[in-house]
Amino acid sequence: MKGAYLDNAATTPVLTEVLEAMLPYLGDAYGNPQSLHDWGDEAREAIEDARGKVATLIGGKLEEIIFTGSGTEANNFAIKGLAQAQQSKGKHVVISAIEHFSVLHSARTLEKWGFEVTQVPVDGHGLVDPEAVAKSIREDTILVSVMHANGEVGTMEPIAEIAEAVKKTGALFHTDAVAAVGTIPVDIKELGVDALSLAANQFYGPKGVGALWLRKGTRIIPILDGGVQEGGRRGGTENVPAIVGMGKAAELAQQDMSSRIERISKLRDQLIGGVTSCVEHTLLTGHPTNRLLGNASFCIEFIEGEAMLMLLASKGIAASSGSACTSRALKASHVLTAMGIPPEIAQGSLLFSLGLNNSEADVDDLLEVLPPIVDRLRQMSPLYAKFLKQQGGGK
Amino acid sequence: MKGAYLDNAATTPVLTEVLEAMLPYLGDAYGNPQSLHDWGDEAREAIEDARGKVATLIGGKLEEIIFTGSGTEANNFAIKGLAQAQQSKGKHVVISAIEHFSVLHSARTLEKWGFEVTQVPVDGHGLVDPEAVAKSIREDTILVSVMHANGEVGTMEPIAEIAEAVKKTGALFHTDAVAAVGTIPVDIKELGVDALSLAANQFYGPKGVGALWLRKGTRIIPILDGGVQEGGRRGGTENVPAIVGMGKAAELAQQDMSSRIERISKLRDQLIGGVTSCVEHTLLTGHPTNRLLGNASFCIEFIEGEAMLMLLASKGIAASSGSACTSRALKASHVLTAMGIPPEIAQGSLLFSLGLNNSEADVDDLLEVLPPIVDRLRQMSPLYAKFLKQQGGGK
Repeated sequence: MKGAYLDNAATTPVLTEVLEAMLPYLGDAYGNPQSLHDWGDEAREAIEDARGKVATLIGGKLEEIIFTGSGTEANNFAIKGLAQAQQSKGKHVVISAIEHFSVLHSARTLEKWGFEVTQVPVDGHGLVDPEAVAKSIREDTILVSVMHANGEVGTMEPIAEIAEAVKKTGALFHTDAVAAVGTIPVDIKELGVDALSLAANQFYGPKGVGALWLRKGTRIIPILDGGVQEGGRRGGTENVPAIVGMGKAAELAQQDMSSRIERISKLRDQLIGGVTSCVEHTLLTGHPTNRLLGNASFCIEFIEGEAMLMLLASKGIAASSGSACTSRALKASHVLTAMGIPPEIAQGSLLFSLGLNNSEADVDDLLEVLPPIVDRLRQMSPLYAKFLKQQGGGK
Repeated sequence: MKGAYLDNAATTPVLTEVLEAMLPYLGDAYGNPQSLHDWGDEAREAIEDARGKVATLIGGKLEEIIFTGSGTEANNFAIKGLAQAQQSKGKHVVISAIEHFSVLHSARTLEKWGFEVTQVPVDGHGLVDPEAVAKSIREDTILVSVMHANGEVGTMEPIAEIAEAVKKTGALFHTDAVAAVGTIPVDIKELGVDALSLAANQFYGPKGVGALWLRKGTRIIPILDGGVQEGGRRGGTENVPAIVGMGKAAELAQQDMSSRIERISKLRDQLIGGVTSCVEHTLLTGHPTNRLLGNASFCIEFIEGEAMLMLLASKGIAASSGSACTSRALKASHVLTAMGIPPEIAQGSLLFSLGLNNSEADVDDLLEVLPPIVDRLRQMSPLYAKFLKQQGGGK
């Protein structure tokens, strides 16, 4: 049963205009961009056009965009590729404690390769302190990676301030902006970063394509060895239709951004206000105001997030309990843990992420459906029974 | 100008049935397979269905298919992932001298990581000698990779015999079957390999998706770290529409394989016969009979391949001068060099690759257009002038 899709953080739908832009390249314009004939030229021109549009969205130059197969690949490429390229200068890398698994696990791989990784903690709102980053930087630090915004709890990080601190040290600064680019203004010049990851399926483009923006002149070691594609930095036949779709999605995002922000932030505030007032013992996670467009993340006490997801799904409502990349792993979120939220509360994690396709009716549906689901689950919760008993005892 | 597309080795068109299978997943069925709701379930079921179809095409088990973003990624994954997983047993890897750059350059990366790589030579037809492979295997050899068929010259390698030799030693055996799977019968049980790479855009599926078949129980280290996708072996949101397209293309390939082979091999033989008889001083490269379906590769003496490609393109004919992944690199092919073809002949490399969309008319067009192009270029060739002079002098 499908009703309200409130899981845009997991993936957004592909806009009709985006699909229309892609279709020729799934049809007659099927050439390989590397081929020296008209089919090849047509495909190559299409991906260069898309490259320009993606670059423009983030204020970068066309030749600084390297297309990848996903945001995850862009993050792997940045962390492993930049660290390897810089390793003659040092082998120390700094990341935040709430990075996406594609950064966190890439950093773990670096450790296996003999690098040392420092994790900078976050506060209760999930904020990284620029001073803490500055203090963690050593003589041999070559790379710092702090995400632009956290997709699970919505907190936006002070990237420009962190970049300023990092720049003084000579280390490179990468930011995973997958959750942010295309939904809110992101400009590499304002941020002052050296590398930035993005993914099309976060802003109404297709799956199967992401990009790494890499400041001109920055050395990187490929993680996908092969042919001469992407300036020799990423082997493999270019995914032309998906790249074209990403370009179109970038163009539309830039055109419509202010109206999208107005609409979606209003819905988000309604959802946050509604849930916190309708459902007792509910904690809004992440930063109260400085949060990602469309992100409404909570911990609902005395309940397991998965049980809520199942019951919501049975009513046609799609939500998640943190990152889509880990939702099937059914572990307590490392993001919530890093924010100091105790495991028994973190297990009640529930993320609603609003997008272009949502309406007030979707929020109303949720606000009607959620309280009885919570009541029902709490009635079965031993933790809740214990809490009530304590409360009773306290009277 | 578009006329005859004789560059199916670079990429094949997407079949209409394949595109139709993909469209729902570029439309309403946009869920993330990792999500715990109906959109997620629908997407997950679709990729598992595709996984089954791809497995069936090569005689493997559903759970042995790991989807990737390309054939290149599958090769990188196999070479780097298997070598890293086995490195406690030894650090020696064997490959052939005519591997695709995604294998060759991955092996080079292994060397940077402290592995040792032996390249087994090929004969004048591009054949790898199973005994030479056996002799190159040492105590510390952990991985052997020899391609199933070479996309540039069409030669099919004796994989089953090589596998038998490798199996005795305890090393793992990977084959890059990107150029072969979906066009000719490929069965992992008959081959006896441990891992095999394939790519959808080689058999009328979309770009942006490949797969690694990996024998159950074989350990591999991910090259794309991240979430729990693909059994934790390949992070990144699954490219659902492309994976579904690959499944459909695999199903169609299996159904129609014998009729496709009949049609395309007939066209190929016409093309080979025609070119060698119409154009003097032409060498068929690769094995004369044991060659890939649709592959007709030549060296045309006294001419540069690129010049021929340009003039052919101006007549609407698409061809290539070796691998699409390197065509823009404009270097002499390492494959032809390894086969002992002198550089001055290798520079005249010309590859026609036939596919489902080709007809006898395409071959006729080529045979009409090619000889005057060759004549015209030879008239401008100092090498040809020298040759004629020597011939005259010999009379």
